[in-house]
Amino acid sequence: MTHLLIVAHGSRREASNDEVRALARRVEALQQGAFSSVRAAFLELAEPSIPDGIQACIDAGAREIRVVPYFLSAGRHVSRDIPAEVAVKQRQYPDIPIHITPWLGSASGISELVLEIAQSDRRSS
Amino acid sequence: MTHLLIVAHGSRREASNDEVRALARRVEALQQGAFSSVRAAFLELAEPSIPDGIQACIDAGAREIRVVPYFLSAGRHVSRDIPAEVAVKQRQYPDIPIHITPWLGSASGISELVLEIAQSDRRSS
Repeated sequence: MTHLLIVAHGSRREASNDEVRALARRVEALQQGAFSSVRAAFLELAEPSIPDGIQACIDAGAREIRVVPYFLSAGRHVSRDIPAEVAVKQRQYPDIPIHITPWLGSASGISELVLEIAQSDRRSS
Repeated sequence: MTHLLIVAHGSRREASNDEVRALARRVEALQQGAFSSVRAAFLELAEPSIPDGIQACIDAGAREIRVVPYFLSAGRHVSRDIPAEVAVKQRQYPDIPIHITPWLGSASGISELVLEIAQSDRRSS
């Protein structure tokens, strides 16, 4: 009953928000039952908001929620804004643990991913 | 003689820029000779700039340069600003191909990475 919420910044450019929603669907397809659902939410400029995304998980029966900050660096949004939004819902639902994971850019696999994309469509060295 | 330049947005928070520089060092350690060097450069707010980063590669003997946009979505910076900066140097050095790879967020492995970080420090499901 753990639900996963991927939280991105949000963009005025709707195609960028759709990229994040498509990513959530790909993660959902990939996760083989580790999570009951995988959703996207946005800090600003797009819907759903973080509180609404958390609420959607709870309405779907979540007993635990993991929030992944889809950010490359740990600036103000990661260190302050996302925790503040999550804390509001945590106070509202104290019995449902809402855990914020490390931000994406801190993943150990990020350097492999950079190397993968650096060598994509490579014709010669 | 292919050199790799990882281009991030740049931040007023120097620790974020240092994260990108540390990433470049990790990619350099990982790449097993695929690239002669791996450097970081920044679109704004940090040094070196993209033109200066490209020039550093050329000064180090680059015959070809690959530029990786270290961005999660393909907004204006990826679609317009980075290509414009690269084009200036490409005109200056027409014999040294400067290739911009897809942006990081488009890498096929990004969904695996989200799942990896979503399950990091997980205590229970």
